[in-house]
This record gives sequence, C-alpha cells and structure tokens, in this order.
Amino acid sequence: MDLDDYRVRGAGKAKLSEYKPDDNGGLERAEAEAELPDLLRRMQDLQQCLYAEKKRSLLLVLQGRDASGKDGTIKHVAGGFNPLGTHVMAFKAPNELERAHDFLWRIHHHVPPAGHVAIFNRSHYEDILVPTVEKLQPKHVIEPRYDHIRRFEELLHDSGTCVLKFFLHISKDEQRERLQERLDSPEKRWKFDPHDLNARAAWDEFTAVYQQIFVRTSTEDAPWHIIPADRKWFRNWLVARIIIRALERMDLQYPASPPGLEGMKIV
Amino acid sequence: MDLDDYRVRGAGKAKLSEYKPDDNGGLERAEAEAELPDLLRRMQDLQQCLYAEKKRSLLLVLQGRDASGKDGTIKHVAGGFNPLGTHVMAFKAPNELERAHDFLWRIHHHVPPAGHVAIFNRSHYEDILVPTVEKLQPKHVIEPRYDHIRRFEELLHDSGTCVLKFFLHISKDEQRERLQERLDSPEKRWKFDPHDLNARAAWDEFTAVYQQIFVRTSTEDAPWHIIPADRKWFRNWLVARIIIRALERMDLQYPASPPGLEGMKIV
Repeated sequence: MDLDDYRVRGAGKAKLSEYKPDDNGGLERAEAEAELPDLLRRMQDLQQCLYAEKKRSLLLVLQGRDASGKDGTIKHVAGGFNPLGTHVMAFKAPNELERAHDFLWRIHHHVPPAGHVAIFNRSHYEDILVPTVEKLQPKHVIEPRYDHIRRFEELLHDSGTCVLKFFLHISKDEQRERLQERLDSPEKRWKFDPHDLNARAAWDEFTAVYQQIFVRTSTEDAPWHIIPADRKWFRNWLVARIIIRALERMDLQYPASPPGLEGMKIV
Repeated sequence: MDLDDYRVRGAGKAKLSEYKPDDNGGLERAEAEAELPDLLRRMQDLQQCLYAEKKRSLLLVLQGRDASGKDGTIKHVAGGFNPLGTHVMAFKAPNELERAHDFLWRIHHHVPPAGHVAIFNRSHYEDILVPTVEKLQPKHVIEPRYDHIRRFEELLHDSGTCVLKFFLHISKDEQRERLQERLDSPEKRWKFDPHDLNARAAWDEFTAVYQQIFVRTSTEDAPWHIIPADRKWFRNWLVARIIIRALERMDLQYPASPPGLEGMKIV
C-alpha cells in the first residue's frame, strides 16, 4: 500500500468517486488496531523532538461531512499527542466580530507557533463550502478565496509549518447509520443537529465544491488527503501513518547543548 | 487514604514541611500504575459529559519548582483527556504587551469556556513568586495580588468553572538528580535552563512565598493541593484521583433530547 494513493495530485485524482469510502488498504482490522498504539507512541516521540527543536510546526486540517469522524479522529489519533504543545481548534459559524474581518483573520490567530501542533476541526474551507452550497454570497466574493487560501498556506509553509489536509470520506449510507445512532443513543443525542439533514440533502452539491477545493488547493506543500472513513479503524491508522511520514521527513533535531554545560555537576 | 489529606485547609496545613515529597499514600507502585489507565478512561468519560453539557468547565493550575514534574503530569494525566475540549497553556515570563496590562489580563484570556478543560502550566501565581523572591517589584505592588487572585478565582467559580490548584512538591535531592539527568542526557538537555540554578539557590525563599500563597489563596472553591512528587507514579495517580472526584461532584448531565427528535428516522 502506498500512502500517496490517498494524496490528491492533479485534477484526475480530485474526483471523490475515484476513492472508495470503505477501502481498507488491504489491511485487517485486528492488524491495524494492534499497530495503532505503536504508531501513536512514534508520533509522540516525533512531536517531542518538534517541541524541543522549536523551529517548525505542524498544522492538521480536518474536513468532512457531518458524522464523518472528525471528532473521533481527534480523540483517537490526535489524542496520542502530548497535550503540552497541542492545540485543537473547532471552527463554528463565524460570529459578528469574525464576520467583520476577512475570512482568514480568525484562522490565522490559531496557526501553530514553532514547536507546536495545531488541529483544525473544520477550517477556512468552510468559508468556501457553506456560502457556495447555500448561495449565501455572490461568486465574486467566494471565487477569490481559493487563491487567498493557497497563498495563506504558502505563507505558513514558508514559515516552517507543515500543513496536512484530510478529507474524511464516508458514504451516504454510513452517514445515515451514524446520524441514526446519534438520535437513538441518549449519550450521543447532544451531537445531533437537525441542520445536518439539510447538508445531507445537499450531498451532491457539497461533493462538487469539495472537488473544486481539491483541484485548486491541493499543492505539493499543503496536500489534501482523501481518507476512506467508513471504517474507523482504517481511518485512524491511515491518518496516523500520514502524520508520522510527514514528521519523519522534517528531519527534526534535538537542539545542540549550549556551550559550557558539558560535564557540569548540579550541587 | 483520604484525598483531603493533600488539600490545604487553614494555615496549619499550609507548611510544606508538613508534607513528605516521597509520600506514596500507602500505595504500591505496581498497584498505582495498573490502576492509572482505568482512571484516565473514567476521566475522559466525565470530560465527555462536561463537553456535552456545555454549562460548566474545569481549570487545572499546575505550579511547582523546576523539574517537579509539571510537564510529566500534563503528558501522563492530562494526556488522558480528549484533546477536543482541552487547552494547555504554558505561561512564560510576560512579554512587553502583557507587561503593559494588569497581571491577570493574559491569564483571563485562557480560562476554559463552558464544556472545556484548561490546564495552566505555571500561572498567575508566578506574578507573586518571581517578583517577591527576585525583589523585582515593591511590596505595595505585589501584596494586593493575593486578593486580586482570590477574587478572580471567585469570579471563575461563580461562572461555573471548577478550579483545582496543584503544587508538585519535590525534595531538593530529587531536584538535583532530575536536573543532573537533564544535563547528562542528549534528549533532555534542551529542557535545562541555567537560570533554574538561581531558583534552586533560592529554595527556602520560594518555600516561604509558596506557603504565603497557600494560606491566602486556598479557598473552598479554589483549593490548593500539595502533591508529593518525588515518585512520579504516585503524583500521576493522585492528581488523576483528585480530578475525577471533582468532576464527579459536579453531577454532570448529558443534555435532554430536543423536542421532536424522538423516534425520528433518517432517510
């Protein structure tokens, strides 16, 4: 299995129909679940070196339809990070002050400083998705946002931030089951939002905008990954593997000892 | 063992010499380590209900001398929380803008919103500790801060935030060993700050200020706990137990189902 199979490169690979939501990468569930704790330990070791080095940072962007597993990915994968140096930000509909600024203003505030990991649960991509599907803003307002986002992510990359973007790809059937489960379970009902049904009804419209987003904003330096998400165990395993590979490629280094400390004895 | 033995109530219990840094609460290491995963799961379940209820929040304040285990407590105990809804803030020496405001301005910004957990790695208490020991500010500036802090924490409590404060209590010998280990290990050397040796030299001065802090700011609603911290496994176990008890006492509730959702079928 090649991790790059899940990375969007070029328009040809930007169609969601090219990816199976129930793909398991040829893995067995037991195998993936048994490996996950080791992957998370490896991830935390790499994060510690990122934190110690304090020169670069990691930004994970999670997008996906309702019930696609964004919260679950945060709990089971991002939960492997040391919370010291990890910041999760869930972006909701912008408030009045946020709407009074450009759409990247509130996003910029939460990007990770050197040494840190930030995870965006939804992101600036909602500012393309929602206004397009719900026709809340005219085309001449939405259209330039693709370029603004590409340049913004380039700024982050140039400043030492590794940007990884994940689309959690579930099937319409799986979404129905998960939403139904939220309704039927007293401990999950608080997650159910009747508004989600509107988004479900606009399934194909969202697909079309996501594909636009993949074509126009998946770059070498801030790639999109399409994560098959019908099987939670494969989703977790794959996201962890992609994060680890990216951190390994950063060639992180513990800082050299400051001069004069060699052989020092504490009294 | 009574968890309240570690809570500061009244001036008589505010002397550090009353607490043994190597206390193990009568527990065996193997026993405590075997129990920790269950405690963390319980902690995460309670946190999920806090998050779902979205009415109250939890603030953990970690203080302690260098190498007393603040980072370790965050990694091993706070690491049990779901990162969605958890925010760790490490307060360093205030920067120019922060110094241009009152000392609680930067702190207030990071208190947990409803449903969330915040962990302060150092805190507003540093604004009493450092200026007192290093004589950076006159008494008439430092002295009122005790009252300001008490009223500030009362505001948080009245607004639904459960405030728990922990002092990680290590012995001077244990600190020497840990600082030496930082110096001698290439993977830990980045944590060593020669400035820590000044604080070590002022050990007794810090003890005196901490005791003042305990006497004057340990209240029923924002109590200080003195955590024996020479044994990391007991420190982790005890902090987790105290957090769980506090969350249990909040009597958290999953929100009731909104009307009209009963028996609904998703199509």
